[in-house]
Amino acid sequence: MQFKRHTLPNGLEVIAECDPSALSLALGFFVQTGARDETPAEAGVSHFLEHMVFKGTARRTAEDVNREFDELGAHYNAFTSEENTVYYASLLPEHQAESIDLLADIMRPSLRTEDFDMEKKVILEEIEMYLDQPPYGMDDHLKRLCFGAHPIANSVLGTAESVAALTSDAMRSYFQRRYAPGNLVLAASGRVDFDAMVEQAEAACGAWDRGDASRPLAPTSVTPSRESIVHSSATQQYALLLGNAPDGVSEDRYAAKLLATILGDDSGSRLYWRLIDPGHAESASLGHYDYQGVGMYYTWLAGEPDDLEENLAAVEEVLASIPTEPPTADELSQAKSKIKSRVVLGSERPRSRLFHLGGGWQMRGDYRSLEEELKRLDAVTIDDLMRVAAEHPLDRNAVVTVGPREDLVL
Amino acid sequence: MQFKRHTLPNGLEVIAECDPSALSLALGFFVQTGARDETPAEAGVSHFLEHMVFKGTARRTAEDVNREFDELGAHYNAFTSEENTVYYASLLPEHQAESIDLLADIMRPSLRTEDFDMEKKVILEEIEMYLDQPPYGMDDHLKRLCFGAHPIANSVLGTAESVAALTSDAMRSYFQRRYAPGNLVLAASGRVDFDAMVEQAEAACGAWDRGDASRPLAPTSVTPSRESIVHSSATQQYALLLGNAPDGVSEDRYAAKLLATILGDDSGSRLYWRLIDPGHAESASLGHYDYQGVGMYYTWLAGEPDDLEENLAAVEEVLASIPTEPPTADELSQAKSKIKSRVVLGSERPRSRLFHLGGGWQMRGDYRSLEEELKRLDAVTIDDLMRVAAEHPLDRNAVVTVGPREDLVL
Repeated sequence: MQFKRHTLPNGLEVIAECDPSALSLALGFFVQTGARDETPAEAGVSHFLEHMVFKGTARRTAEDVNREFDELGAHYNAFTSEENTVYYASLLPEHQAESIDLLADIMRPSLRTEDFDMEKKVILEEIEMYLDQPPYGMDDHLKRLCFGAHPIANSVLGTAESVAALTSDAMRSYFQRRYAPGNLVLAASGRVDFDAMVEQAEAACGAWDRGDASRPLAPTSVTPSRESIVHSSATQQYALLLGNAPDGVSEDRYAAKLLATILGDDSGSRLYWRLIDPGHAESASLGHYDYQGVGMYYTWLAGEPDDLEENLAAVEEVLASIPTEPPTADELSQAKSKIKSRVVLGSERPRSRLFHLGGGWQMRGDYRSLEEELKRLDAVTIDDLMRVAAEHPLDRNAVVTVGPREDLVL
Repeated sequence: MQFKRHTLPNGLEVIAECDPSALSLALGFFVQTGARDETPAEAGVSHFLEHMVFKGTARRTAEDVNREFDELGAHYNAFTSEENTVYYASLLPEHQAESIDLLADIMRPSLRTEDFDMEKKVILEEIEMYLDQPPYGMDDHLKRLCFGAHPIANSVLGTAESVAALTSDAMRSYFQRRYAPGNLVLAASGRVDFDAMVEQAEAACGAWDRGDASRPLAPTSVTPSRESIVHSSATQQYALLLGNAPDGVSEDRYAAKLLATILGDDSGSRLYWRLIDPGHAESASLGHYDYQGVGMYYTWLAGEPDDLEENLAAVEEVLASIPTEPPTADELSQAKSKIKSRVVLGSERPRSRLFHLGGGWQMRGDYRSLEEELKRLDAVTIDDLMRVAAEHPLDRNAVVTVGPREDLVL
C-alpha cells in the first residue's frame, strides 16, 4: 500500500492508496458537504442533489450515465451523510480512464427543472418511508433536542416541508457554493495507476472554476433531557439515548470505540449479557459516532412496551458502570479482537479502503494506514478507557422513547 | 495463491488456497449433503440439521458456541442448498487453531431431543414466512413440475408437513449417513498456515469414524408445461420460467452464464431494454444455475397483473431471440466485462474465495484458480454461444404464473 497525493491548480485534490496486488479498483468523489452545511431553508438539499447528480450532464443523458456504468461492469452508488456526499464505483483496473471521465462528468450535472420536479416525488416518498419505520424519525428529533439549532442536528433527508418548498434555483445555488473543486477530493484505492489518474483528473476536471467552501465548526454538546413520544401503531417501545463522546479528530476515538464495544456491542457486551441473552429486550446496543468537532454515544433499546422502565433502568445502570466496574483485561482484549477483525475483514475490498481513505482525509486531512490504525487501537490501555470515560461520562444522556405507551413518565 | 490439499486417514479432505498477502482467514466445513440427498420422509432435514449444529456438543453448550465465536471476533454463519451444507467463519489469522477446534466440534453436535423440539418451531415459522413471500413457494412448485420425482426438485426447507412429522431419531440417522468424514471437506482461504491446519484438523477430526456417503446422479431434464396459480393477496403477477441448461461440470457453463447475462442480466440486457427500461415490468431477469448433472435457466418476471400476457410474450420472444439475432461482439464483451468484474470484486474477500474453493471441489473434485476461471470465460466466442444455445434452447421452458389474476389462460 502506498499513499499518493496531488493537487490540481484549481484546488481539486487527488489521493490514492495504491495496492499493486489488488485485482480491482475503487474510485470516488468525496464532496465535503452534507446536512450540516445546509441552512434551514435548504434542509435536505444535499441528499436531493445526490439523486440529481445521476440525472444527466451536458454530455450525457441519465440513460447514458446508467448504461455506461453498466457497460464498464462497474458497481456504483452514492450516499449522503451529515458531513459528506460520496459518489463511487468499483470496477476492473482496465476501466480506470473511462470511469474517471464518467464520474467527473456527473460531478457537473445539468440539474434540469423537469428532472428536479420528478425526483422531488421520489425524495418525498423516501421521507415518508423513513417516518413510517422505527424509530419514526425520533433519531432526528433526539439530535435536535440535544444540539438545538447547531447544524450537526440537521436531518440528512430534510423534512417533507423543507423538500416540498425547495426550488431548483436554490439547489443550483447550493451546488455552486459546495461543489467547488477545493471542496472535492477524487480518491482511489486498489490497483490504481496514479500518474495516469492525475492526468485523467486534469483532463476531466482541470477546467472547473476554482473555488473553495468552508464549514464553520462551532462547538456544541448534548443538553440532557427526557421525553416520551406516543406512536400508537408501534408494537414495540423504543428508547434512544444520546451523549457526548470524543470527536472524529480526537485520538481518544479509539478508546471511545472500545468502550462502546465493551458496553454495547450487539453480541457479547455488558448490555448483551444483561438484556439480550436473558431475553429481556429485543435489542440493546451502543455505538460511537464521530464528526468534525462533535462525537456522540448513541444507545438503542427495543422491547415489549411494558418492560420499558425496567429495561431502560438496566441500560442506564450499564452505561454508568465503568467508574465502579472498570473494564477487565478480558473485556478489553475481546473488544480489540472484535474491532480489529471488523476493520481487517472490512478492509479487504478496495471499496471499503476507499471510504476509509476519503473519509479520513476529509475529516482530518491526513492519511493513516491500516497497520497504523490497528497499532493505535492495540495501544489503548484500561487506564485510557477510564480516563476517556471520566472525560465523557457515558451516563449523561438525553433520552427519547417512542412507542404505544401513553402513560410513560420518564 | 497456492492450492494445497491433504487427506486424513479417515477420509476427511483438507484443502486450502493460501494467500500470504491476505489479512484475514476464512474457514469452513463443506458437507456434501442437501435437499437432493433427502428421502421424501426426510424433506427439510438438511436445513433443520444445519440449525441444530449450533445447539451444542459434548464439550460445549449452545451458549459456549456463540460466545466463543464472538470472543474470536469471528463472523460466522451457515447455509444449506440443494447440494451442500456449509459452516464457515471469517476471522484474524491468529485465531486459526481455535476456530478449527470450534468448527470441528460443532460438526459433531449433540442433537438433543429438547433442542430439536424447540428448533422445529423456528423452522416451521421460516417455512410459513417463505410461503408468505413472492413467489409464494412457486419456485419449489415449478421445480417439482419440471423434474417430477427427481431429487433435484426437492425443497431446501421441506414442507410444513414433512418437518412437523420429522423425528429427532430420523435426523440422527440422516446425520450418521451424511456427515461421515469422507463426505466432508475442511477448506480454508486467505492467510492460512496449511501445515498447522492439517495438524489441527488431525487433532480435532482424526478420531471421527471413517465413512463415506454417495449421491446417485440420475439424469433428468425439464418437462415443459404451463400453469397459472391464483394467489389473491398478491399485488403483482409473477411468472417463473425454467429450462434446461449446461450443468455444473460442463465446460459450457461459461457460455451459459454469458448467454444468461446477455439476455437477462438485471441491468442492461435484452430483457432489461425490452421490459424494464421502458417501464413495462417491475423486474425481468434470467439466471443460470448449475448442479451436479443438472443445469437450469431460471427466468423471473414481475409486474402489473393486467400486463402479464404482454410481458410474458415479450420475455418468451427475448428467450427465443438467439438463433435469429445472434449476440453481437459488443453484447459479448459487455457480458464478459460484467461477469469478470463480479467475479473479481467478489473474490477479494477470503470468504468468497472459500465458497468458490469448497463449492468447486465438491462439485467437480478439482481446483481452478481465479486466473484460470477468467481465462475460460474470456475464451468464449460467439460461435460457442450459438452452439450452446442450440444444444440447450432457451425457449423450451416450463412456466408457472402466480398472482391475483383468476382469468389467466396460458
